[in-house]
Amino acid sequence: MKLATLKDGSPDGVLHVVSRDLTRSVAATAITPTLQTAIEKWDLVADALEQLYAALNAGTAPGAIALEPRRLAAPLPRAWQWLDASAFHSHGDLLEKVFGLDPPPEKRSVPLMYQGAGDDLIGACDDVPLPSEDDGMDFEAELVVILDRVPMGTTVAQAESHIRLLTLANDTSLRALAAKDLKTGFGFLQSKGATTFGPVAVTPDELGDAWRDGRVHLPLHVHWNDQPFGHPHCGAMGFSFGELIAHAARTRNLAAGTLIGTGTISNENFREVGSACIAERRAIELVDEGAPRTPYLKFGDRVRIEMFDTAGRSIFGAIEQSYVRADIG
Amino acid sequence: MKLATLKDGSPDGVLHVVSRDLTRSVAATAITPTLQTAIEKWDLVADALEQLYAALNAGTAPGAIALEPRRLAAPLPRAWQWLDASAFHSHGDLLEKVFGLDPPPEKRSVPLMYQGAGDDLIGACDDVPLPSEDDGMDFEAELVVILDRVPMGTTVAQAESHIRLLTLANDTSLRALAAKDLKTGFGFLQSKGATTFGPVAVTPDELGDAWRDGRVHLPLHVHWNDQPFGHPHCGAMGFSFGELIAHAARTRNLAAGTLIGTGTISNENFREVGSACIAERRAIELVDEGAPRTPYLKFGDRVRIEMFDTAGRSIFGAIEQSYVRADIG
Repeated sequence: MKLATLKDGSPDGVLHVVSRDLTRSVAATAITPTLQTAIEKWDLVADALEQLYAALNAGTAPGAIALEPRRLAAPLPRAWQWLDASAFHSHGDLLEKVFGLDPPPEKRSVPLMYQGAGDDLIGACDDVPLPSEDDGMDFEAELVVILDRVPMGTTVAQAESHIRLLTLANDTSLRALAAKDLKTGFGFLQSKGATTFGPVAVTPDELGDAWRDGRVHLPLHVHWNDQPFGHPHCGAMGFSFGELIAHAARTRNLAAGTLIGTGTISNENFREVGSACIAERRAIELVDEGAPRTPYLKFGDRVRIEMFDTAGRSIFGAIEQSYVRADIG
Repeated sequence: MKLATLKDGSPDGVLHVVSRDLTRSVAATAITPTLQTAIEKWDLVADALEQLYAALNAGTAPGAIALEPRRLAAPLPRAWQWLDASAFHSHGDLLEKVFGLDPPPEKRSVPLMYQGAGDDLIGACDDVPLPSEDDGMDFEAELVVILDRVPMGTTVAQAESHIRLLTLANDTSLRALAAKDLKTGFGFLQSKGATTFGPVAVTPDELGDAWRDGRVHLPLHVHWNDQPFGHPHCGAMGFSFGELIAHAARTRNLAAGTLIGTGTISNENFREVGSACIAERRAIELVDEGAPRTPYLKFGDRVRIEMFDTAGRSIFGAIEQSYVRADIG
């Protein structure tokens, strides 16, 4: 089934069930008020949500309305936890090479992951407000899983059963501030802006055969100002979602509603398929041409991120948003 | 005023107003259900909460009950954001020296801060479950501010007005896993267990003259298995809370209910006043005796963290808890 959160002025919005073809939605309020409460009580509410989804797809759900992506908040407008990995080896290897970074310890056997800020998440069609073009604004197109409660010590084999939904993310990054954050060892802080999610979150069965080995075996399409920028394949993940979840739960419980991202999607043949962030393209230019040529984002720039099934149908809808100057002071 | 969260089986508990002498409390349900909702609507509910606090202190609040610290959850049992700094220079300088770490860039002018996990916070008298003594279990005694919404770009001068409450924290750390996390540059992940807060959160006015310059000018008392371990003075903070808040809000909004911690309290004369974490004592031993002598925590060990006003009265109540083996698998 497909779920989304309609903005209603409250911090957590209203849960809607969305039709498979992304044209209509219906409030799930009679079942559970928000996506967070749905995730917390999944076993109690999933059947009723599936029935509503079936009725919506059959055209028999009372109260259905046309889906307007601009009215959608992030599926979780604020999340108790947002963890993001760097699960694509071709991306990490390239950036290490270009920036002369030490490879992380055991980089092929231990996932690289940071704690992100989940308190203020951006809807798929909303602007991304940031203070300055000088900070090196970049997008990062990713896939994300939404988990129910994961107890400490959950194994890789057990971990995938906690994946309730998947969605898209644009992990906005500020490259001019990243080197300083990384050098502290304390991780990204000022160098990550608020992350964008959605528009729609889907259960793994919606992906059909493309969901296997704890990975989504489909390309992710990224456009920058209406120009194709990259369509790397998500099946190239160096770690499965199960491995990422088990890594995060090694020494603590993960609360229901935890989000875990893949990090920038990237493929070995990035020169052919393109990239999912500007930093990677600049690194390729540095290797191939001696200097980066592509600038980072300017205010007014637009980014579009979307995934299609093998029949060409949009699975999650599109993240489609503009970067704008924040109204400060 | 003083506030706390009583466990009631729900994820966010029930907001109680606590008497100044920490002996009684009364449910604030008629005003607002949880501390999170109180922080979100502070300007609408603060007066009513203060009136209830005055009645409770006068012995005229109907429904008041005896305060039982074991029944308290963390003031925010889950928080939308938990950020922790390393604001005491004597601690950072010592650890850099001992571990041969590069000093962070601009370490006297730019706060060091990491994104923590706020999804699963531990009550002041609850056990801390962890998987293994081999992970190098340590406590870190800290002070924490609880903020209302802080807009992106808030200045140091504006920042302190967003501090609604202060409380204590025990930032449980797993030292055997920290070096690996720091080396990735991505920050602490497996090397931080769930953090403990509380028991009681207080408005800054409860600190009287001890609250000035964005700092709390009182010592924090730490006991390990009933033995005094340290009582470093919190006034030695190298950065004010205002500076920490402005640093965190440089490129993003901080949602209402954001927690920001000081990091381990530490003083230049740590040989006299002791430390607020075992790692610091071990570093001193390494400098003075050539090798660390004090082991990390064992299961069954107890930690107590408490702050007193100049008249010797407990301000927040005590964090008093045991480390136990997690029930895994």
